[in-house]
This record gives sequence, structure tokens and C-alpha cells, in this order.
Amino acid sequence: MATTNPTDIPRTLSWQGETTGCLRMIDQTLLPMELREIDCDSVEQVWEAIRALRVRGAPAIGVAAAYGVVLGVRSAASGSRDEFDAALDKTATYLASSRPTAVNLFWALDRMRQFAGGHPEASPSELTALLLDEARRIDDEDRAMCAAIGRVGAELLSDGDAVLTHCNAGGLATAGDGTALSVFFAAAAAGKKIEVYVDETRPLLQGARLTQWELMQRNIPATLICDSMAGWVMKQGRVQAVVTGADRIAANGDAANKIGTYSVATLAKAHGIPFYVAAPTSTFDLALPDGSQIPIEERAAEEITHGFGRQTAPDNAQVFNPAFDVTDAALIQAIFTERGVIRPVTTENVRKMVGSSAADN
Amino acid sequence: MATTNPTDIPRTLSWQGETTGCLRMIDQTLLPMELREIDCDSVEQVWEAIRALRVRGAPAIGVAAAYGVVLGVRSAASGSRDEFDAALDKTATYLASSRPTAVNLFWALDRMRQFAGGHPEASPSELTALLLDEARRIDDEDRAMCAAIGRVGAELLSDGDAVLTHCNAGGLATAGDGTALSVFFAAAAAGKKIEVYVDETRPLLQGARLTQWELMQRNIPATLICDSMAGWVMKQGRVQAVVTGADRIAANGDAANKIGTYSVATLAKAHGIPFYVAAPTSTFDLALPDGSQIPIEERAAEEITHGFGRQTAPDNAQVFNPAFDVTDAALIQAIFTERGVIRPVTTENVRKMVGSSAADN
Repeated sequence: MATTNPTDIPRTLSWQGETTGCLRMIDQTLLPMELREIDCDSVEQVWEAIRALRVRGAPAIGVAAAYGVVLGVRSAASGSRDEFDAALDKTATYLASSRPTAVNLFWALDRMRQFAGGHPEASPSELTALLLDEARRIDDEDRAMCAAIGRVGAELLSDGDAVLTHCNAGGLATAGDGTALSVFFAAAAAGKKIEVYVDETRPLLQGARLTQWELMQRNIPATLICDSMAGWVMKQGRVQAVVTGADRIAANGDAANKIGTYSVATLAKAHGIPFYVAAPTSTFDLALPDGSQIPIEERAAEEITHGFGRQTAPDNAQVFNPAFDVTDAALIQAIFTERGVIRPVTTENVRKMVGSSAADN
Repeated sequence: MATTNPTDIPRTLSWQGETTGCLRMIDQTLLPMELREIDCDSVEQVWEAIRALRVRGAPAIGVAAAYGVVLGVRSAASGSRDEFDAALDKTATYLASSRPTAVNLFWALDRMRQFAGGHPEASPSELTALLLDEARRIDDEDRAMCAAIGRVGAELLSDGDAVLTHCNAGGLATAGDGTALSVFFAAAAAGKKIEVYVDETRPLLQGARLTQWELMQRNIPATLICDSMAGWVMKQGRVQAVVTGADRIAANGDAANKIGTYSVATLAKAHGIPFYVAAPTSTFDLALPDGSQIPIEERAAEEITHGFGRQTAPDNAQVFNPAFDVTDAALIQAIFTERGVIRPVTTENVRKMVGSSAADN
């Protein structure tokens, strides 16, 4: 097992045992106050964990969904192949309904389905084991991908840079070291002094709860700010770059990410600060010519009005709560992928780098 | 008593009785869940109320401080005039230490001190009563000022406009109808359909707790968003203007206001949306040529890490928590004052409008 994490932090998610095993994951809704792992024994538990953000971050959701497929089909392992294929279809459709925006979810489910389709000769029992192997490959590839993105992005950071990030594109968002945060870890590993400003990322505070926690665990100097302070931090010359993750990237480079990313990118442009996106090629959805087609999940008003066990807005307040926004490619200086840097961000350069990846179908 | 408020909401602050009376105010830290008034019988209580943000908003702080002077000197009313003047000095210096950024605080205290200096013949007992009259004048003028700012600003809003605002520049921030919110109330009173997007305004959520509450009380359609959503709301064409208050404005029009205002102004400019500031002329500090000299209060880390009655960041997280930022005059389309509109915002136009106001010394 690759040691992606130098401390004793448990892995974000990992499969325990063989086909009769379970998916173990950190319950991220409890961080940073409590580090608790939960074991998912059923596909329903995985669906709920994705829906309730116990596991979140596009790549981690993809890996969780791949293992979730194994949980969903293994009860059909003793039946006919037709019954098994029907269970697989049902499982994949069900898991796809857990979060609407993260393309890695659909990508991982499609990959598992296509893998099964590529083994028409396998018995349900054999195929269950093979699907677990395939989920493990997705998991392994994700960790390798994180490391590669980190190496690619770290080259664009300089010794002494302070960098701003939004939400959590860290190890907790992937099976490995993260995407945006992997860049910071790789830069630090390469001997560069890096400091990070962390947007708390309302409404769910993934920055305050998760990114700040991960950076402190890894001894990267981190300063927590409210989202509204990003512009002022830039104005004061405190940061030299911005790096975020992405949940879905269109063929022209328009990138959907956690709500607030678009504001940060616009502010970075106004201050002449490069805005970078770190994301695996599986995040690209080349079927979408631009970001206008990306569906934006709207979440419950209570996330804003009752965020942390306490009501902070009047009863019956009308709320607008989009979970994501779309940052125009023109605002993105470069995209770091596991295959290299896309720069400038154009449809042609995206096609060259992402080419015929699995997401391109 | 002017009826600035059509509903049964108590006044933000009001003096009860004569010189032996007290300063009654809404404890804004309890809103919107509880509408409770507190009576301040001592200058220490007023200092604490300002410091703890029970009363907040530059104009309201000024009025509270003026009444606070009466509370601070009345125990000296039976002594010599020298003793009284010493008590007045001590009271004003003490109250000035409650919040460092709001110029109206210093303006009101200076006005009370100068008023006393202008009545060298008055006995301490007479002067106490005269100072209460002067505080009441500041209070009355504040309410008239709010109404005038509302009329001035409302002319620049069109029927059907949606407007974004940040923090609370409402009736709760003044003795009257507010500054930014007075514009919306005046536009609505003039028959214009106005809709407001309300930034929740982390860390202390004055937007969610106070502005959303005030607008709902006054039947202005209001939609609450997180601060990070402002850019996306603009990108989607949902708002046609931004109006905020200000805590201190330099001679060139650079305006200090609640942290996040600078981000909103920068985002508005990037989207071609006019950004307006609504503030009385007492907010101007013509002794400062530009905003770089405005002191920015930094507040406790716990406002960010323990904001909602629950810890939301790791123990010992490093935090940057400036309470204000400064918006360059170049980002401000116009400033609405009780005397008229300053547009474009230049040192010359500021001087013309603000002229020899009481703040200009």
C-alpha cells in the first residue's frame, strides 16, 4: 500500500477484506472535532454517505461509488448472469442519483459497467471478484493521479509563495493526496516554503473543517479566513497564486467547482494573480462544449439558515443555495492534470491533453 | 416622535426619561431569534454594548456614544465645572476606545465635547441637561439623515431592480431607517418594485441575522446568500446594482466598510454593475487623504473558528480576521449622502459635497 500520508491519519476511504468485506471511510461530517471511521456494508449506506457528504470531493466520490457497485451486486453473485447484470444496472443508476454534479461519479460507474460488459464469459461470482479488482484499480489510479497532479502543479509555485485555496481539494476529497492540496504537499516535499490561505467555504465549511485540518496535519502553514476576505487578502499582496479543485470541466475548460470558486477566480484576475485548477482528466466532460450545460445542484436552505446547530437567519427566510458555480476558462491560467499542464486553457489544448480518456464518451 | 418604521418594531436605540434616565437599545446580538431591549444606566454598559456589538453600525454607534456621554458625566453634575469637564474628557476618551474604525463614534464624541466647550457659563447641572438635548439632536438629525439618504439613493434605482447588499446598513445600524436599506425602503415607498440579495456577512452574520430580518419586517422581498455566492449571482444577471453602507470614508472617497465589501465592489466592477455607498457626511474623515490611513480593526479568531456556537475549525488554527476592508473610490459609482449624490467619486466632488461638515476638523 502506498504511503501517501506521512502521519498516522487513516485513509479517506479503503476497502476492507475481499468481496464479503466493506468500504471503510472517514465520516467527514464529524471533522475536525472527531476523526471517526464508518464501515459501509450496503450500497444504500454508500449512497447515503455520498448524499450526506460523509465522503465528498469528486475523485473520492468516484472511488466510493466503484466500491459501492461491489456492495450492490454481491448479493446477486449466486444467481444467473442476467440477474447479475440487472442488479449492476440498478446499482449504478441508484448510485448515480446521489450527487448530480460530480462527473467522476458517473465516470466511475460507467467504467464499472463497461468492465462488466467486457467480461461476458464471467460467472456472477467471478465477476464480483473482478469488479472488486477494478474498483481497487480505480482507487490505486486515483492515488497515483494525485501524486502526478502534485508534481505537475508544484513546478508552477515558487519558494516562499503564499497560495489561496477554496473548499477542500485535499486528500479527503480523493483516495490519495488530493488535487489542489497535492500541489502544496509536492511543493513542500520539493523543499519550497509554501503558505496557504484557506477560505472557510460556506455554507458547509469544508475549508475550515477539512482543508485547514489537513494542512495542519501535514505541517503546511495555513491561515483560515472567511470567504469574504479573499479579495482583501489579494489586495494586500498576501497571496501569489490561487489553486482549487474542480468537480466537472467542460471541453473548453470552463470548470464547475464549489460555490465561491467563480468569485475567487474573478477576484484573482482583477488582482493579476494566477488562478489554477488542479483536477484529474476524469473530471473532464468533453461531451459538454462549455460550462453553460453543467447542471448546478441547489441544496437545502437550512445549510445557510441553520448551519451549525444554531439558527442564524429569520424563520421562513428565502434562500438561494447553489452548491457549485462555473468558472470561465478565460479566468483560469492553467489546469494541472496527472498528464501535464493545460495552458492556455482552450478547447484545443484540452483536447490535446485529455484526448480519448475514459470520460470522453 | 417621527414614525420611521411602519411596523411595531421597537426603535434601535432611544433615550428614556430625562437626565436621570437611561439609554434603551435592542440587543442586536440576540436577533433574529429574540427581540430583547436592554437599558444602559452607566457609561460602562454603553461601552460594553458597543464593544460587544449589541449596538453596531457607524451612525447608531455615534448616537449611542452621545447618550453615553450623558451617562458618564451626570454623576459629576453636583461638583465643580472643572470636575465636570474632567469627567467629560475621561468619558469621551473611554467611549472612543470601544471601537477603533467607526468615525461617527469620534465625530459624536467631539461634537459633545465641543458643545460643552461652547457653554463655559453653564453649571454642571445645566450642562448635563444641555448635553442630553444635544445627544437628542444628534439622534433626530440621524433619523432625518437616513430619510434624506433614502430619497437621494432611491432615484438611482429602477422599478424591478434587484440589488445586492452586504452586512447591515439598516435601521438597526442607525437611529432611523438606515443608510443602504433606507434607499430600498424609500424606493419601495415611491412605488418601485425592489428585490434584495442579502450577503450573510461572515463572520458575525449581520446580513443573515439583521438585514434579512429588517427587510422581511418591512415586506421587501429578500433572498439570503452566502458571501461566496455574490459573484455567481452577478454572473447570472440576477442583480442590477449593489448598495452598502460605510464606516469611514477618506477625502478621496475610499470607503472602509465591513470586511467583504471590497470583494463585492471588485466583483461588481468585473460585471459592469454599479456599486453604490450610502453614508451620511459625518462618515467622511477629510483629514485622511485616502483610505490607506484608515485603521483596520482585527477581531478575535473565535469569531471564525467558533462562530455558530460550535467549533468549526481545528484547535489552534491560525486565523486572519480583519473586521473591515477599504474599497477604492475608483470602484464606487456614486456615494449617496443626506446632502445629495457624489458622482463621480473624486476628492474635489467629496469636498464640494461634504465641505465644512463637523467631521472636517
